[in-house]
Amino acid sequence: MSSKKNRQFLFVSRPLGLPSDENFRLKEVEVPELLDGQVLIRTLYLSVDPYMRGRMSDAKSYVEPFPLGEVLTGGVVGEIVESKHEKWQTGDVVVGLGGWQDYTVSNGRGLLKIDPTQAPISTALGIVGMTGLTAYFGLLDIGQPQEGETVVVSGAAGAVGTVAGQIAKLKGCRVVGIAGDDSKCDYLVKELGFDVALNYKSTPNLSSALQEACPQGVDVYFDNVGGEITDAVMHHLNFQARIAICGQISQYNLEQPTLGPRVFVQLLKKSALAKGFIVNDYAPRHMEGMQQLIQWLAAGQLKYSENIVDGLENAVDAFLGLFRGENIGKQLVKVSDL
Amino acid sequence: MSSKKNRQFLFVSRPLGLPSDENFRLKEVEVPELLDGQVLIRTLYLSVDPYMRGRMSDAKSYVEPFPLGEVLTGGVVGEIVESKHEKWQTGDVVVGLGGWQDYTVSNGRGLLKIDPTQAPISTALGIVGMTGLTAYFGLLDIGQPQEGETVVVSGAAGAVGTVAGQIAKLKGCRVVGIAGDDSKCDYLVKELGFDVALNYKSTPNLSSALQEACPQGVDVYFDNVGGEITDAVMHHLNFQARIAICGQISQYNLEQPTLGPRVFVQLLKKSALAKGFIVNDYAPRHMEGMQQLIQWLAAGQLKYSENIVDGLENAVDAFLGLFRGENIGKQLVKVSDL
Repeated sequence: MSSKKNRQFLFVSRPLGLPSDENFRLKEVEVPELLDGQVLIRTLYLSVDPYMRGRMSDAKSYVEPFPLGEVLTGGVVGEIVESKHEKWQTGDVVVGLGGWQDYTVSNGRGLLKIDPTQAPISTALGIVGMTGLTAYFGLLDIGQPQEGETVVVSGAAGAVGTVAGQIAKLKGCRVVGIAGDDSKCDYLVKELGFDVALNYKSTPNLSSALQEACPQGVDVYFDNVGGEITDAVMHHLNFQARIAICGQISQYNLEQPTLGPRVFVQLLKKSALAKGFIVNDYAPRHMEGMQQLIQWLAAGQLKYSENIVDGLENAVDAFLGLFRGENIGKQLVKVSDL
Repeated sequence: MSSKKNRQFLFVSRPLGLPSDENFRLKEVEVPELLDGQVLIRTLYLSVDPYMRGRMSDAKSYVEPFPLGEVLTGGVVGEIVESKHEKWQTGDVVVGLGGWQDYTVSNGRGLLKIDPTQAPISTALGIVGMTGLTAYFGLLDIGQPQEGETVVVSGAAGAVGTVAGQIAKLKGCRVVGIAGDDSKCDYLVKELGFDVALNYKSTPNLSSALQEACPQGVDVYFDNVGGEITDAVMHHLNFQARIAICGQISQYNLEQPTLGPRVFVQLLKKSALAKGFIVNDYAPRHMEGMQQLIQWLAAGQLKYSENIVDGLENAVDAFLGLFRGENIGKQLVKVSDL
């Protein structure tokens, strides 16, 4: 039965600074026999995300560190190819937590069935999955954007940023994106309808550029990046501004944390709010968010972009590319065909 | 009629760093004749508060800068000694915005009548006035302390800190205060019922001391101080902690803003919230807060301390004393007797 070969990426050492190939090892094993109550999932797509960098450190955080010597885990879309679980049938396409491997054995917990006729199956990891939900709840629940307000999004061309900016447009806001190259900025303005996109790498003075781009100041800041980009935004907050702290990718790979201006002074002066979050904080409301995202997508009101790397063997490189700023939209690894 | 002499403190130059006597000038003028619709208030007490330092700079902030060459303004309790306003009678005792002067001419806007039989009139500037309301709304609305949680208060022996800590105790929390000398710490624990008070000046490692004082971590942080004290607290935040940013007194007198650890990283890791506020953000709910504070005070559930300096001529010194950490509780200047 299970004489299938399974390639797995193990996490073998904790990176200091930017991760590199040596922190990972590709290994080949046999797929084990299923026990009762288990299913075997063949990986179709796997999601690589900046938050995973946090799990590679052993610092106390909102998610457990990846254990050393074990298979890396993350969101996957896959097909059930064997089932000893009464709820699941061979042929079901599911999204859930899986491994960076060809096959994942699962007890079915947390798996969601997806309907391949409703939207491309890869979107279950992106715009109608965790990525879209992250943007949806961070922007709407923390940011509370009101019509006519100005919303700034950093990491705007990333998976979450593209969705957050588009939802802000749907809410009638002026939307200013910050990204790291001109093609991303073009994409944000021409394809996604952002009002302005600023290339922080080529803009000589980001704070002045923000002042010009946000003549009415900044009411909502959706922050994926942190660091000096956030420092610049902080100067332009309006009274009672709201900041959704979704990511701080500029800080994840620093060997020594950097210092920065003391932002509590700014929050005080503006009666402003800043809140960190992860999508799991909103788990009880995920269905609500998913339904809304699917509806917007079906109505053509949300666009998405995927950057798909082919082959499990390239998963580490796809992950490292996130920190080189290579992706527009959602970064995925295609492992096999449906 | 008005041949009364009026001593006034003018604000004559903007301080760089710590304010000093030279930023202020005491001047004597005659009290002008009242116009219709005006009242003359004889100052009994005036309030000096850390936030006034912010108004001495011309940086954009939540309150307008004090204009140069004019009388300093702030909260006063006074007696109406002349009235050409139909609502106000000679002999009324009021609280409101007045000047650092013996007499203030007012059009009555924003004045509240106080009942000297209900509580000492000075408390209208403190525990049942802006100070108490600041603690009340910051702690309860932003901090949302739940029974059994741990609340840390910095600047704990100050006017707002003493109230915030006591309200947290009333809500069933473990309360840890941070203050700058042992007598303040004694007062917090022995008089006000704080569970622990830490003297940040004599504690060799504040972060370790906090760890010991907060074995369950920190759920709510009421921050009056900022800077390195706040840096230490940030290491001990619990998941979904709430930070009410009430003041940042350690930062007000810096000629150059200092840098510090990047707190957004910490807020992200803990899904934590930080919000700046001023008491005016809650203006529509001030009556609610005042009624509750008066009730707690009458029931003996809230204690307060006042540090009263005698004589208008000492107002500047009383203000500067706030930055020397001299006061326990509310700092007032007594200008004349009722």
